[in-house]
Amino acid sequence: MPHLIVEYSQNLAGFPEAQALTELNQAVTSSPEVLDEADLKSRFVLVDSFEVGTAPANRAFVHAQLRLLSGRTPEAKKDLSERIAEVLRRLSPKPAGVMVQLSVEIVDMDRGSYVKERL
Amino acid sequence: MPHLIVEYSQNLAGFPEAQALTELNQAVTSSPEVLDEADLKSRFVLVDSFEVGTAPANRAFVHAQLRLLSGRTPEAKKDLSERIAEVLRRLSPKPAGVMVQLSVEIVDMDRGSYVKERL
Amino acid sequence: MPHLIVEYSQNLAGFPEAQALTELNQAVTSSPEVLDEADLKSRFVLVDSFEVGTAPANRAFVHAQLRLLSGRTPEAKKDLSERIAEVLRRLSPKPAGVMVQLSVEIVDMDRGSYVKERL
Repeated sequence: MPHLIVEYSQNLAGFPEAQALTELNQAVTSSPEVLDEADLKSRFVLVDSFEVGTAPANRAFVHAQLRLLSGRTPEAKKDLSERIAEVLRRLSPKPAGVMVQLSVEIVDMDRGSYVKERL
Repeated sequence: MPHLIVEYSQNLAGFPEAQALTELNQAVTSSPEVLDEADLKSRFVLVDSFEVGTAPANRAFVHAQLRLLSGRTPEAKKDLSERIAEVLRRLSPKPAGVMVQLSVEIVDMDRGSYVKERL
Repeated sequence: MPHLIVEYSQNLAGFPEAQALTELNQAVTSSPEVLDEADLKSRFVLVDSFEVGTAPANRAFVHAQLRLLSGRTPEAKKDLSERIAEVLRRLSPKPAGVMVQLSVEIVDMDRGSYVKERL
Protein backbone atom coordinates (compact mmCIF):
# COMPACT_ATOMS: atom_id res chain seq x y z
CA MET A 1 0.00 0.00 0.00
CA PRO A 2 2.77 2.54 0.41
CA HIS A 3 3.09 5.43 -1.98
CA LEU A 4 6.44 7.10 -2.44
CA ILE A 5 6.66 10.47 -4.19
CA VAL A 6 10.05 12.07 -4.77
CA GLU A 7 10.20 15.65 -6.01
CA TYR A 8 13.38 17.39 -7.08
CA SER A 9 14.12 20.84 -8.41
CA GLN A 10 15.15 21.17 -12.05
CA ASN A 11 18.61 22.50 -11.22
CA LEU A 12 19.48 18.91 -10.28
CA ALA A 13 19.63 17.88 -13.92
CA GLY A 14 20.81 14.38 -14.51
CA PHE A 15 19.10 12.93 -11.47
CA PRO A 16 19.33 9.15 -12.03
CA GLU A 17 15.61 8.54 -11.66
CA ALA A 18 15.53 4.97 -12.94
CA GLN A 19 18.37 3.84 -10.71
CA ALA A 20 16.89 5.68 -7.75
CA LEU A 21 13.49 4.07 -8.28
CA THR A 22 15.08 0.64 -8.31
CA GLU A 23 17.14 1.28 -5.20
CA LEU A 24 14.37 3.06 -3.31
CA ASN A 25 11.94 0.24 -3.94
CA GLN A 26 14.53 -2.28 -2.83
CA ALA A 27 15.24 -0.31 0.33
CA VAL A 28 11.62 0.26 1.28
CA THR A 29 10.22 -3.16 0.43
CA SER A 30 12.95 -4.86 2.45
CA SER A 31 11.46 -3.22 5.54
CA PRO A 32 9.38 -5.60 7.69
CA GLU A 33 6.56 -3.05 7.40
CA VAL A 34 6.00 -3.90 3.74
CA LEU A 35 4.45 -7.32 3.29
CA ASP A 36 4.24 -7.47 -0.51
CA GLU A 37 6.83 -5.80 -2.72
CA ALA A 38 4.16 -5.14 -5.36
CA ASP A 39 2.39 -2.79 -2.98
CA LEU A 40 4.96 -0.02 -3.24
CA LYS A 41 4.14 2.57 -5.89
CA SER A 42 6.95 5.07 -6.38
CA ARG A 43 7.22 8.08 -8.65
CA PHE A 44 9.49 11.00 -9.44
CA VAL A 45 8.26 14.52 -10.03
CA LEU A 46 10.47 17.15 -11.64
CA VAL A 47 9.77 20.62 -10.24
CA ASP A 48 10.27 23.33 -12.84
CA SER A 49 9.01 26.40 -11.04
CA PHE A 50 10.44 26.79 -7.55
CA GLU A 51 12.28 29.03 -5.14
CA VAL A 52 14.14 28.12 -1.96
CA GLY A 53 14.09 30.88 0.65
CA THR A 54 14.66 34.54 -0.09
CA ALA A 55 18.42 35.00 -0.42
CA PRO A 56 19.97 35.28 -3.90
CA ALA A 57 21.72 31.90 -3.81
CA ASN A 58 21.88 28.71 -5.83
CA ARG A 59 19.70 26.26 -3.98
CA ALA A 60 18.13 22.95 -4.87
CA PHE A 61 15.99 20.41 -3.09
CA VAL A 62 14.99 16.77 -3.07
CA HIS A 63 11.89 15.93 -1.08
CA ALA A 64 10.47 12.45 -0.57
CA GLN A 65 7.08 11.65 0.86
CA LEU A 66 6.14 8.13 1.90
CA ARG A 67 2.43 7.64 2.49
CA LEU A 68 1.47 4.48 4.32
CA LEU A 69 -1.49 3.20 6.27
CA SER A 70 -1.68 4.47 9.84
CA GLY A 71 -0.65 2.30 12.76
CA ARG A 72 3.13 2.09 12.43
CA THR A 73 5.32 2.77 15.46
CA PRO A 74 7.49 5.89 15.57
CA GLU A 75 10.52 3.60 15.30
CA ALA A 76 9.22 1.92 12.16
CA LYS A 77 8.50 5.29 10.57
CA LYS A 78 11.94 6.60 11.41
CA ASP A 79 13.52 3.47 9.97
CA LEU A 80 11.59 3.93 6.72
CA SER A 81 12.59 7.57 6.34
CA GLU A 82 16.21 6.64 6.96
CA ARG A 83 16.07 3.93 4.29
CA ILE A 84 14.81 6.48 1.79
CA ALA A 85 17.30 9.14 2.84
CA GLU A 86 20.22 6.75 2.44
CA VAL A 87 19.43 6.20 -1.24
CA LEU A 88 18.69 9.82 -2.07
CA ARG A 89 21.72 11.14 -0.19
CA ARG A 90 23.92 8.86 -2.26
CA LEU A 91 22.31 9.27 -5.69
CA SER A 92 21.30 12.92 -5.73
CA PRO A 93 23.43 15.19 -7.91
CA LYS A 94 25.46 17.71 -5.90
CA PRO A 95 26.35 20.43 -8.40
CA ALA A 96 29.26 22.65 -7.44
CA GLY A 97 28.15 25.89 -5.84
CA VAL A 98 24.61 24.70 -5.20
CA MET A 99 23.19 24.06 -1.74
CA VAL A 100 21.13 20.89 -1.99
CA GLN A 101 18.54 20.18 0.71
CA LEU A 102 17.24 16.68 1.25
CA SER A 103 14.11 15.95 3.25
CA VAL A 104 12.01 12.86 3.85
CA GLU A 105 8.52 12.87 5.28
CA ILE A 106 6.34 9.98 6.44
CA VAL A 107 2.58 10.46 6.14
CA ASP A 108 -0.08 8.32 7.79
CA MET A 109 -3.02 7.49 5.55
CA ASP A 110 -6.45 6.97 7.09
CA ARG A 111 -6.87 3.22 7.26
CA GLY A 112 -10.63 2.98 7.69
CA SER A 113 -11.54 4.73 4.46
CA TYR A 114 -8.70 3.45 2.30
CA VAL A 115 -9.66 1.50 -0.82
CA LYS A 116 -7.16 -0.85 -2.39
CA GLU A 117 -7.76 -3.39 -5.11
CA ARG A 118 -6.35 -4.91 -8.26
CA LEU A 119 -8.38 -4.30 -11.38
CA MET B 1 -14.08 22.58 -0.28
CA PRO B 2 -12.95 19.11 -1.28
CA HIS B 3 -9.94 18.61 -3.49
CA LEU B 4 -9.67 15.46 -5.57
CA ILE B 5 -6.35 14.50 -7.15
CA VAL B 6 -6.13 11.41 -9.35
CA GLU B 7 -2.71 10.18 -10.45
CA TYR B 8 -2.15 7.40 -12.94
CA SER B 9 0.92 5.82 -14.43
CA GLN B 10 1.69 6.50 -18.07
CA ASN B 11 1.29 2.85 -19.10
CA LEU B 12 -2.46 3.44 -18.78
CA ALA B 13 -2.53 5.43 -22.00
CA GLY B 14 -5.97 6.42 -23.15
CA PHE B 15 -7.32 7.04 -19.69
CA PRO B 16 -10.61 8.88 -20.34
CA GLU B 17 -9.76 11.84 -18.13
CA ALA B 18 -12.57 14.14 -19.23
CA GLN B 19 -15.24 11.50 -18.76
CA ALA B 20 -13.77 10.46 -15.44
CA LEU B 21 -13.70 14.06 -14.19
CA THR B 22 -17.36 14.45 -15.06
CA GLU B 23 -18.38 11.19 -13.42
CA LEU B 24 -16.17 11.65 -10.36
CA ASN B 25 -17.54 15.12 -9.72
CA GLN B 26 -21.08 13.80 -10.12
CA ALA B 27 -20.40 10.93 -7.71
CA VAL B 28 -18.69 13.03 -5.05
CA THR B 29 -20.96 16.08 -5.13
CA SER B 30 -24.04 13.89 -4.79
CA SER B 31 -22.75 12.88 -1.34
CA PRO B 32 -24.55 14.63 1.52
CA GLU B 33 -21.12 15.73 2.72
CA VAL B 34 -20.74 18.19 -0.14
CA LEU B 35 -23.06 21.16 0.20
CA ASP B 36 -22.17 23.09 -2.97
CA GLU B 37 -21.17 21.30 -6.16
CA ALA B 38 -18.89 24.21 -7.09
CA ASP B 39 -16.68 23.42 -4.10
CA LEU B 40 -15.18 20.27 -5.60
CA LYS B 41 -11.94 20.87 -7.43
CA SER B 42 -10.71 17.76 -9.25
CA ARG B 43 -7.59 17.16 -11.31
CA PHE B 44 -5.71 14.41 -13.09
CA VAL B 45 -1.95 13.97 -12.94
CA LEU B 46 -0.11 11.76 -15.41
CA VAL B 47 2.88 10.06 -13.81
CA ASP B 48 5.73 9.56 -16.27
CA SER B 49 8.50 8.31 -14.03
CA PHE B 50 7.43 5.48 -11.75
CA GLU B 51 8.07 1.95 -10.58
CA VAL B 52 5.76 -0.45 -8.78
CA GLY B 53 7.59 -2.85 -6.47
CA THR B 54 10.78 -4.66 -7.36
CA ALA B 55 9.78 -7.61 -9.55
CA PRO B 56 10.26 -7.37 -13.33
CA ALA B 57 6.57 -7.17 -14.18
CA ASN B 58 4.17 -4.93 -16.03
CA ARG B 59 2.41 -2.93 -13.37
CA ALA B 60 0.32 0.21 -13.38
CA PHE B 61 -1.51 2.24 -10.78
CA VAL B 62 -4.34 4.69 -10.32
CA HIS B 63 -4.36 6.57 -7.03
CA ALA B 64 -7.00 9.06 -5.93
CA GLN B 65 -6.71 11.39 -2.99
CA LEU B 66 -9.71 13.29 -1.67
CA ARG B 67 -8.82 16.09 0.72
CA LEU B 68 -11.68 17.50 2.75
CA LEU B 69 -12.13 19.50 5.92
CA SER B 70 -11.80 17.46 9.10
CA GLY B 71 -14.82 16.39 11.07
CA ARG B 72 -16.45 13.74 8.87
CA THR B 73 -17.45 10.42 10.38
CA PRO B 74 -15.58 7.25 9.41
CA GLU B 75 -18.74 6.11 7.61
CA ALA B 76 -18.95 9.28 5.56
CA LYS B 77 -15.30 8.97 4.59
CA LYS B 78 -15.70 5.35 3.59
CA ASP B 79 -18.74 6.24 1.51
CA LEU B 80 -16.77 8.93 -0.30
CA SER B 81 -13.86 6.65 -1.10
CA GLU B 82 -16.27 4.02 -2.41
CA ARG B 83 -17.95 6.57 -4.68
CA ILE B 84 -14.58 7.46 -6.16
CA ALA B 85 -13.47 3.84 -6.49
CA GLU B 86 -16.64 2.92 -8.32
CA VAL B 87 -15.92 5.39 -11.11
CA LEU B 88 -12.22 4.64 -11.42
CA ARG B 89 -12.71 0.88 -11.30
CA ARG B 90 -15.06 1.17 -14.24
CA LEU B 91 -13.24 3.73 -16.36
CA SER B 92 -9.60 2.83 -15.85
CA PRO B 93 -7.88 1.11 -18.77
CA LYS B 94 -6.95 -2.52 -18.04
CA PRO B 95 -4.29 -3.36 -20.61
CA ALA B 96 -3.72 -7.05 -21.23
CA GLY B 97 -0.81 -8.43 -19.24
CA VAL B 98 -0.62 -5.44 -16.93
CA MET B 99 -1.47 -5.58 -13.23
CA VAL B 100 -3.39 -2.40 -12.43
CA GLN B 101 -3.66 -1.30 -8.81
CA LEU B 102 -6.38 1.09 -7.73
CA SER B 103 -6.27 2.95 -4.43
CA VAL B 104 -8.33 5.73 -2.89
CA GLU B 105 -7.29 7.75 0.10
CA ILE B 106 -9.26 10.26 2.16
CA VAL B 107 -7.28 13.05 3.81
CA ASP B 108 -8.51 15.36 6.57
CA MET B 109 -7.54 18.99 6.11
CA ASP B 110 -7.03 21.17 9.18
CA ARG B 111 -10.22 23.17 9.49
CA GLY B 112 -9.04 25.96 11.77
CA SER B 113 -6.34 27.27 9.47
CA TYR B 114 -8.06 26.66 6.15
CA VAL B 115 -8.64 29.69 3.92
CA LYS B 116 -11.33 29.57 1.27
CA GLU B 117 -12.68 32.42 -0.80
CA ARG B 118 -13.79 33.45 -4.26
CA LEU B 119 -11.69 36.12 -5.91
CA MET C 1 11.60 22.94 6.85
CA PRO C 2 8.36 24.20 5.38
CA HIS C 3 7.24 23.11 1.97
CA LEU C 4 4.87 25.29 -0.01
CA ILE C 5 3.09 23.89 -3.06
CA VAL C 6 0.81 26.14 -5.11
CA GLU C 7 -1.37 24.58 -7.79
CA TYR C 8 -3.41 26.57 -10.26
CA SER C 9 -5.68 25.60 -13.11
CA GLN C 10 -4.48 26.31 -16.63
CA ASN C 11 -7.29 28.77 -17.37
CA LEU C 12 -5.37 31.22 -15.18
CA ALA C 13 -2.79 31.78 -17.90
CA GLY C 14 -0.28 34.45 -17.16
CA PHE C 15 -0.03 33.66 -13.47
CA PRO C 16 3.06 35.61 -12.35
CA GLU C 17 4.81 32.61 -10.84
CA ALA C 18 8.23 34.17 -10.33
CA GLN C 19 6.84 37.24 -8.60
CA ALA C 20 4.51 35.13 -6.51
CA LEU C 21 7.36 32.85 -5.41
CA THR C 22 9.37 35.87 -4.31
CA GLU C 23 6.49 37.42 -2.42
CA LEU C 24 5.26 34.17 -0.90
CA ASN C 25 8.71 33.32 0.39
CA GLN C 26 9.06 36.80 1.84
CA ALA C 27 5.66 36.56 3.52
CA VAL C 28 6.18 33.09 4.98
CA THR C 29 9.78 33.45 6.10
CA SER C 30 8.98 36.69 7.92
CA SER C 31 6.74 34.64 10.22
CA PRO C 32 8.31 33.96 13.64
CA GLU C 33 7.61 30.26 12.95
CA VAL C 34 10.34 30.10 10.31
CA LEU C 35 13.80 30.33 11.82
CA ASP C 36 15.93 30.15 8.67
CA GLU C 37 14.75 31.64 5.38
CA ALA C 38 16.63 28.95 3.47
CA ASP C 39 14.33 26.31 4.91
CA LEU C 40 11.31 27.28 2.83
CA LYS C 41 11.01 25.32 -0.40
CA SER C 42 8.22 26.65 -2.62
CA ARG C 43 6.96 25.46 -5.97
CA PHE C 44 4.23 26.08 -8.50
CA VAL C 45 2.32 23.34 -10.27
CA LEU C 46 0.24 24.05 -13.37
CA VAL C 47 -2.85 21.84 -13.53
CA ASP C 48 -3.81 20.98 -17.10
CA SER C 49 -6.58 18.45 -16.59
CA PHE C 50 -9.20 19.58 -14.11
CA GLU C 51 -12.87 20.20 -13.46
CA VAL C 52 -14.53 22.30 -10.78
CA GLY C 53 -17.94 21.02 -9.74
CA THR C 54 -20.58 19.80 -12.14
CA ALA C 55 -22.25 22.91 -13.55
CA PRO C 56 -21.31 24.09 -17.04
CA ALA C 57 -19.46 27.22 -15.93
CA ASN C 58 -16.07 28.84 -16.28
CA ARG C 59 -14.28 28.07 -13.07
CA ALA C 60 -10.67 28.21 -11.98
CA PHE C 61 -8.77 27.52 -8.78
CA VAL C 62 -5.60 28.34 -6.93
CA HIS C 63 -4.74 26.02 -4.06
CA ALA C 64 -1.77 26.39 -1.75
CA GLN C 65 -0.54 23.78 0.68
CA LEU C 66 2.01 24.60 3.36
CA ARG C 67 3.55 21.56 5.00
CA LEU C 68 5.43 22.20 8.22
CA LEU C 69 6.59 20.19 11.20
CA SER C 70 3.88 19.49 13.74
CA GLY C 71 3.65 21.45 16.96
CA ARG C 72 2.49 24.89 15.86
CA THR C 73 -0.43 26.55 17.62
CA PRO C 74 -3.74 27.03 15.81
CA GLU C 75 -3.06 30.77 15.85
CA ALA C 76 0.35 30.36 14.21
CA LYS C 77 -1.15 28.13 11.52
CA LYS C 78 -3.94 30.58 10.82
CA ASP C 79 -1.43 33.40 10.58
CA LEU C 80 0.63 31.44 8.05
CA SER C 81 -2.36 30.62 5.85
CA GLU C 82 -3.42 34.27 5.91
CA ARG C 83 0.08 35.37 4.84
CA ILE C 84 -0.12 33.04 1.87
CA ALA C 85 -3.67 34.02 0.99
CA GLU C 86 -2.79 37.70 1.00
CA VAL C 87 -0.19 37.22 -1.74
CA LEU C 88 -2.25 34.87 -3.89
CA ARG C 89 -5.41 36.97 -3.59
CA ARG C 90 -3.48 39.93 -4.92
CA LEU C 91 -1.42 38.27 -7.65
CA SER C 92 -3.80 35.69 -9.06
CA PRO C 93 -5.28 36.47 -12.46
CA LYS C 94 -9.03 37.12 -12.34
CA PRO C 95 -10.22 36.61 -15.93
CA ALA C 96 -13.56 38.18 -16.80
CA GLY C 97 -16.39 35.69 -16.57
CA VAL C 98 -14.41 33.12 -14.64
CA MET C 99 -15.11 32.21 -11.03
CA VAL C 100 -11.73 31.85 -9.31
CA GLN C 101 -11.54 29.94 -6.05
CA LEU C 102 -8.61 30.43 -3.71
CA SER C 103 -7.83 28.02 -0.90
CA VAL C 104 -4.92 27.62 1.50
CA GLU C 105 -4.28 24.54 3.58
CA ILE C 106 -1.79 23.98 6.40
CA VAL C 107 -0.52 20.42 6.86
CA ASP C 108 1.34 19.07 9.89
CA MET C 109 4.28 16.84 9.04
CA ASP C 110 5.26 14.07 11.45
CA ARG C 111 8.21 15.45 13.35
CA GLY C 112 9.66 12.23 14.75
CA SER C 113 10.31 10.57 11.42
CA TYR C 114 11.28 13.65 9.42
CA VAL C 115 14.72 13.67 7.84
CA LYS C 116 16.34 16.96 6.90
CA GLU C 117 19.89 17.57 5.85
CA ARG C 118 22.09 19.48 3.45
CA LEU C 119 24.04 17.38 0.99
